[in-house]
Amino acid sequence: MKAISNRYIIIRTHINGAPQESDFELKTKALAPGSDDTVVRNVYISIDPYQLNRMKNKDESQKASDFSSAITPGEEIDAYGVGRVVASGNPDFEKGDLVAGLLIWGEYSVVKAGGMLRKLDPMGFPLSDHLGILGFSGLTAYGGLFEICKPKKREKVFVSAASGSVGHLVGQYAKLFGCYVVGSAGSKEKVALLKDKLGFDDAFNYKEEPDLKAALQRFFPDGIDIYFDNVGAEMQEAAIANMNMFGRVAVCGVISQYTDAGKRAAPDMFAVVYKRIKIQGFLGVDNMNVYEDFMSKTCDYLRSGKIHSLEDISRGLESIPSAFVGIFKGSNVGKKIVQLTEE
Amino acid sequence: MKAISNRYIIIRTHINGAPQESDFELKTKALAPGSDDTVVRNVYISIDPYQLNRMKNKDESQKASDFSSAITPGEEIDAYGVGRVVASGNPDFEKGDLVAGLLIWGEYSVVKAGGMLRKLDPMGFPLSDHLGILGFSGLTAYGGLFEICKPKKREKVFVSAASGSVGHLVGQYAKLFGCYVVGSAGSKEKVALLKDKLGFDDAFNYKEEPDLKAALQRFFPDGIDIYFDNVGAEMQEAAIANMNMFGRVAVCGVISQYTDAGKRAAPDMFAVVYKRIKIQGFLGVDNMNVYEDFMSKTCDYLRSGKIHSLEDISRGLESIPSAFVGIFKGSNVGKKIVQLTEE
Repeated sequence: MKAISNRYIIIRTHINGAPQESDFELKTKALAPGSDDTVVRNVYISIDPYQLNRMKNKDESQKASDFSSAITPGEEIDAYGVGRVVASGNPDFEKGDLVAGLLIWGEYSVVKAGGMLRKLDPMGFPLSDHLGILGFSGLTAYGGLFEICKPKKREKVFVSAASGSVGHLVGQYAKLFGCYVVGSAGSKEKVALLKDKLGFDDAFNYKEEPDLKAALQRFFPDGIDIYFDNVGAEMQEAAIANMNMFGRVAVCGVISQYTDAGKRAAPDMFAVVYKRIKIQGFLGVDNMNVYEDFMSKTCDYLRSGKIHSLEDISRGLESIPSAFVGIFKGSNVGKKIVQLTEE
Repeated sequence: MKAISNRYIIIRTHINGAPQESDFELKTKALAPGSDDTVVRNVYISIDPYQLNRMKNKDESQKASDFSSAITPGEEIDAYGVGRVVASGNPDFEKGDLVAGLLIWGEYSVVKAGGMLRKLDPMGFPLSDHLGILGFSGLTAYGGLFEICKPKKREKVFVSAASGSVGHLVGQYAKLFGCYVVGSAGSKEKVALLKDKLGFDDAFNYKEEPDLKAALQRFFPDGIDIYFDNVGAEMQEAAIANMNMFGRVAVCGVISQYTDAGKRAAPDMFAVVYKRIKIQGFLGVDNMNVYEDFMSKTCDYLRSGKIHSLEDISRGLESIPSAFVGIFKGSNVGKKIVQLTEE
């Protein structure tokens, strides 16, 4: 294999607070794969908020509670992605294979034997779907809704960051299941998308609601049964204030707290006690037990046009920093993905 | 039946904030039972923090989320208790019957047919046990621990307000089940009681710990699996910060928030997500499905001396206001009860 010069993105230093594009740098280095490594030409790379948590400067106690390893300044940044094998010393893969797994924010990835990589059968769906609706975003939405919240038909479901990578799928799964669904988002355009394209019963722009508690009371005169929380902070407090008896809160993301650690939800614990509310944190990977179910249902919904995947694709390695910075400003609509080369 | 003059306690006005003895008043009124009512001479009356919530001046939205009706200034205050029937027009009860149910903070109670009242078989145990360890406190402790937290042997359990009516039972159930148990309480004497009499593995005085997070790290070097929360606020935050993966928080009480509505727990929702923590509010009455199990196990433990019930009994109707005010100051040790007459 001839020497390949790889271009990839690093962080200059740890990032505490909101990320800036200047926190990132493009580096170039010749690939030097080991004899049983697999070299992948990255096609699509996932851009996810949780990466920011890995970029923080943490003390030991925080590290212990983290679900994945820290990102080191100057080093490659691993991320979920799909790509095509260009060379492999690993007998499990050969040149030309489509693969999905833990790649890097770069043009190529070198994946060691035993690394998180699998052959990808696109099953007739666009490759990018396998990062979003058929990937962890979909599994997170499906598992969070059905396993954590255990909805009943006609229950009232509220989804925050409802046009986000996970939120827009949660709302559609809940609608298809037979729930009443309202979503919040950060612009008029996103609200219209939720109502007109994705079939949410209603949606609102949280930036236009000075009193979130009152807003939720307006949208849920009979109370909220399920809150799929992607944001934390005041929105969680307002949702819990409007929650019905035996309500469930699936805490999937804490976008408000990513860039401001002091921004905390302080829900009324009286309400939690009296209304017997469950607040449950979870990760997509916890739901592998429903993976088969998730895939078969979601593929069916996609084929029959009953579910829509929102993707927000930027192009080129250079767009990764702005794509990442943007997700904390709500710039993206749906799953944020960077495409690094043609399929 | 000759006319009985009943003495009872009322609130003068709604109480917002910490209660004062001057908020209460003793009133006298002739009993006027209806033809099918039951008149009970109250023997023991339960003094519980949740009553304060019923005494608050609330707006409609708060009322809707409350689990029991408001207490009206000037009116009788219902409370769980045990007593003896002195007259009954209800065929289910006759004079001399021992009964347990919803009585009032008074010397006598008039219970309507269909009211919450049942004949009480003391089964050889002191009558007061039926308000505490064999009553709702016990069921709350048992159900909260086993149904909400689902402990495994050798798991690490932290109990706050551990010398309180529910806490001291939770710790003992957890020990008997095979867990490692640490409790927090508000005095040296209470701490000694937990360790020396109740068999807690360890205990500490939270008032002597300026940094609760560091304190819990000291007592749980391997982390907390289960937190039985009776207090809320900073203690809940500190417990969640020290929690292991898949930790469970049973929110039973919010003593810190009763007298100061602004005192809220604002746990790190990142930790909740990454550690997949469950925070679950509940009430004792939710656990009627394990009532038989709770009663048979607890009676066995009591008979064999494996569990100890802490009771703090004041005497006489006049002591009710100070008894009630005291539970918000941590004056009580174990279940707070007022005895109104001899058994």
